[in-house]
Amino acid sequence: MIRQLAHIGIAVSDIEKSVDLYRRIFQPDEIHREVVPEQKVEVASFVIGNVRIELVAPMSDDSPIARFLQQRGEGIHHLAFESNEISADLVRLKESGIVLLNEHPTQGAHNMAIAFLHPKTTGGVLIELCQRIEPQSE
Amino acid sequence: MIRQLAHIGIAVSDIEKSVDLYRRIFQPDEIHREVVPEQKVEVASFVIGNVRIELVAPMSDDSPIARFLQQRGEGIHHLAFESNEISADLVRLKESGIVLLNEHPTQGAHNMAIAFLHPKTTGGVLIELCQRIEPQSE
Repeated sequence: MIRQLAHIGIAVSDIEKSVDLYRRIFQPDEIHREVVPEQKVEVASFVIGNVRIELVAPMSDDSPIARFLQQRGEGIHHLAFESNEISADLVRLKESGIVLLNEHPTQGAHNMAIAFLHPKTTGGVLIELCQRIEPQSE
Repeated sequence: MIRQLAHIGIAVSDIEKSVDLYRRIFQPDEIHREVVPEQKVEVASFVIGNVRIELVAPMSDDSPIARFLQQRGEGIHHLAFESNEISADLVRLKESGIVLLNEHPTQGAHNMAIAFLHPKTTGGVLIELCQRIEPQSE
């Protein structure tokens, strides 16, 4: 079941310039930095009340974010929603006609299992589902 | 001060088709319907945990949403953030170089004063600020 918004992903070209810009707009308390090698991106994120904003910049020309920037320019890239049963949600969504970009969850930032839905089947909105990976008990 | 995300606005062509699609994806408990004559749009909105999603469809070809759909197609249109002092935030943002689409707040849905920031100066993200209009005491 899809429970809540986890973050809003915004594609940016230059992470430092964008951090400066978003600091001026939102005046966040602190900015968290992270590199996600699997996605070839660097991320700067901050919380505004009920939501985390993730600024995502490509570290390589073949990053999906680089292709997005070439086609659309800077702007909102995706909405990530937290699920409490991501595999079951993916099955449910596929059965209802939604095309999955990841048939099975893959590793994302913040120790999350993630999967994307194809925006052509979700009204032009790139939706990420995510679920925290619980540590295995020994 | 910008406090929290109020809603995510998604531009859609056909409100009924989109309600059906988003019901399938998000399984919301209930859908709220509203017409906003000032913006020439109809709105269907629902809550997923910490966030309200607003599907916004044009009621006229000269609605700003109709122009967005012509240029970009369906997808995320804007992020609305709640402010506790919208006029002061607009002054602050203008002074820091952000271009305002509304120099002064105007009337929005849900009895809110609203104002938009120009996306060319906010990293390609159309940002709405909003503040609930408190009833005047007599």
